[in-house]
Amino acid sequence: MGRWEPDARGRLARAALELYAETGYEQTTVADIAVRAGVTERTFFRYFADKREVLFDGSGELQRRVLDGVTAAPASLAPVDAVARAFEGAAALLEERRDLSRHRAATIAANPSLQERELLKFAGLGAAVADALRARGIAEPAATLAAETGVTIFRVGFEKWIAGSPGDLARCIRETLAELKTLTGAV
Amino acid sequence: MGRWEPDARGRLARAALELYAETGYEQTTVADIAVRAGVTERTFFRYFADKREVLFDGSGELQRRVLDGVTAAPASLAPVDAVARAFEGAAALLEERRDLSRHRAATIAANPSLQERELLKFAGLGAAVADALRARGIAEPAATLAAETGVTIFRVGFEKWIAGSPGDLARCIRETLAELKTLTGAV
Repeated sequence: MGRWEPDARGRLARAALELYAETGYEQTTVADIAVRAGVTERTFFRYFADKREVLFDGSGELQRRVLDGVTAAPASLAPVDAVARAFEGAAALLEERRDLSRHRAATIAANPSLQERELLKFAGLGAAVADALRARGIAEPAATLAAETGVTIFRVGFEKWIAGSPGDLARCIRETLAELKTLTGAV
Repeated sequence: MGRWEPDARGRLARAALELYAETGYEQTTVADIAVRAGVTERTFFRYFADKREVLFDGSGELQRRVLDGVTAAPASLAPVDAVARAFEGAAALLEERRDLSRHRAATIAANPSLQERELLKFAGLGAAVADALRARGIAEPAATLAAETGVTIFRVGFEKWIAGSPGDLARCIRETLAELKTLTGAV
């Protein structure tokens, strides 16, 4: 049990993600999760609507942190750099959870209906970041272009990170931004 | 009736997209589409499984053209430029259909279940482009990063085009690529 999960919610999340990775998402029941976490099913339902929600529980907090980062970024930064830096700042939310993030990613990759939900989550995040950029005076199509590019940088950096790339998630995001600049022929 | 639709399939597609825009996707029946196209319902079902398929009928052809373009791109091009150029080449498929493309986009924007299908389509396209880049010897994460960035450039360029930006779709894609380079602080 890591520092990030002193509570029932954290134990439930860890138990669920471990079970999804070990025995499969479809095969895992809420009863299984509650037993492993050492709580009752009723406690599970105090925190999560169903077993799918465990996988998407952190989405709101991630989005809030990214949007705060976009709002706070210095005006001197190019828009894609500002968005990438906002994702870097939000990465702290996940830094202590590399193993669980890997379990989560494997679970989603194995289940098409979860993949759809994940795509929708990122589409919503991209739209919200574009809104935040427009609120900073960045016009279309620049706002959408920078927001969607930032989401891509985050997703690709996240994959690097869970694949075991050296360094933390923030570093993987920075490296991915640098790589994008190379790939656009910019460096 | 434009040059691109000498046949029943083309007339059905145009009739469907016009009706979706005029009276709404949910409210339009296959019978309505067949009447406007001047064919029987049975003819509709010879070409399309259902009214949703009319909206996604061109996806396979678009993907084939993009993948051919990626495969044929000069090795000297930076990966993002190669992918953007492949989308530019595939744009010819849509050039004569700006009005219908606009109807289609409005229909999808108004219907969450169609939006999901559209997201899945682009996710599949991005994955296929990344495969094609890997087949050209481009490693991960560069392949996924260039592919996803290319899809973003196409989608944003497409929005510019249907919003009435001067020039054809290929030009809107080129301008969007140039804008991305500016936004990454590269130009």
